[in-house]
Amino acid sequence: MSRLCYINGEILPASKAAIGISDLALQRGYGVFDFARTNHRRLFHFDDHLQRLRLSASELHLKLPFPEEEITSIAEHLIQESDLDNPAIRLILTGGYSSAPVYQNPNFIIILEELSTYPAAIYAEGVELITVEYQRELPHVKSLNYLNSIRLAPLIREKEAFDILYHSESGITECPRSNFFVFQGNRLVTPSDFILSGITRKIVLEFASAHFPVEVRQIDPGELTAIDEAFVTSTSKGVLPVTAIDAQPVGSGRVGDRTMTIMRLFNEYTASYK
Amino acid sequence: MSRLCYINGEILPASKAAIGISDLALQRGYGVFDFARTNHRRLFHFDDHLQRLRLSASELHLKLPFPEEEITSIAEHLIQESDLDNPAIRLILTGGYSSAPVYQNPNFIIILEELSTYPAAIYAEGVELITVEYQRELPHVKSLNYLNSIRLAPLIREKEAFDILYHSESGITECPRSNFFVFQGNRLVTPSDFILSGITRKIVLEFASAHFPVEVRQIDPGELTAIDEAFVTSTSKGVLPVTAIDAQPVGSGRVGDRTMTIMRLFNEYTASYK
Repeated sequence: MSRLCYINGEILPASKAAIGISDLALQRGYGVFDFARTNHRRLFHFDDHLQRLRLSASELHLKLPFPEEEITSIAEHLIQESDLDNPAIRLILTGGYSSAPVYQNPNFIIILEELSTYPAAIYAEGVELITVEYQRELPHVKSLNYLNSIRLAPLIREKEAFDILYHSESGITECPRSNFFVFQGNRLVTPSDFILSGITRKIVLEFASAHFPVEVRQIDPGELTAIDEAFVTSTSKGVLPVTAIDAQPVGSGRVGDRTMTIMRLFNEYTASYK
Repeated sequence: MSRLCYINGEILPASKAAIGISDLALQRGYGVFDFARTNHRRLFHFDDHLQRLRLSASELHLKLPFPEEEITSIAEHLIQESDLDNPAIRLILTGGYSSAPVYQNPNFIIILEELSTYPAAIYAEGVELITVEYQRELPHVKSLNYLNSIRLAPLIREKEAFDILYHSESGITECPRSNFFVFQGNRLVTPSDFILSGITRKIVLEFASAHFPVEVRQIDPGELTAIDEAFVTSTSKGVLPVTAIDAQPVGSGRVGDRTMTIMRLFNEYTASYK
């Protein structure tokens, strides 16, 4: 199976696609991206991802090079051509070549890649997060800058944790690639600000309010000691239970009933998505 | 005149050099760099730049792929082959391809490019800085992440300023690509921490102490209203006077005698450098 890629008008195997070394993404980390999944080989909430990509781009004074319908057509074409089992779409918009007028000629790359999957066991048992004090720059922008989270990979391994949970003076915020939710009793709470607005987060918030009281607000780190359940959401992980934070069990330390309800509702939503 | 480039064992025109789209620098902004100048076509303080590059790399768990003498040989070879007037050397070490084990196979690129020059008038008249609250991540690491400074280019243009001066809870720190110095009377003061340790800054600190009392310490933003002179230092700018900050004149608003002394001493140092 090979990954396919669209780059500035051409479709080729991703392994053959390259970008000139003067691009501002390589020279200055200047660029944005988004990452969308498919569902039975059909695009899933792709409009939401494109809308977020456009927002990220505009914060960096960059423009998508063509209309969203055209990007959607290219993505659909790549999916048709691909032999991947479960294709996902990575969209990268860079600052363009440093020789060009700044912001004016971004490079646009669409990569079709196999969606990462996670072992079923971690959905049954939950995962552990470790808290790290850090505030992402421009948190509502999905910029290319993941330097901090990649740099901390050895810390995650050392602590035998699954991922990092960031906090800052704005409270608990998010994981590097996921949003964070807690249950306090029956109340579902998720941070409101200084986060990336996740598409899976948005879906969960939409259906959850029919089942639980929902609060979107700042979460103080001190509240973590008094939560009953927790989970993270992301495009690749879906809804993933969190059963420990900083080596302390969350609630009973097992996946709770309410989180299982959210997981079931999300799977039903995904299965019925057209 | 063409820029030359070394990339993973090969020397070719920089305009033909490319990097695969799965590199972590492009996908995640993960990489470090350094930038050294020449002096009469000879490397200038190149060992200092290599030492800083090694430090930056190690903070990101990356290693230079071969010994420093070999990197120096390649740089010297590129300079010999090049027809640039005033070649400068950009060294980029990326996180490597995301398909490879993380941190294990960085891509290493050496680009020979013409050193930027600045009009003589700005050295005679000085430049204006505008203050922006911001703290670079890992300030002692020359990472690829310059997202914030590039994003602020329109603000600089709007204010008709030359550059940004960052401050944070750690006080006045630095400009995005330069270090910052002030004179308070005869005392030369420059920030101590949460900055990138500039090579030109180091040179200035070494020779200045024979002429002025030198203080390397935190500078409170409030002190800016009571300074007599200011300047910035960088590899490409050398010593550049600052005569206004946030639309307020620094001291008399003209380039001061002490700053001119520093400029003269730096030029003498450079001229005699072997």
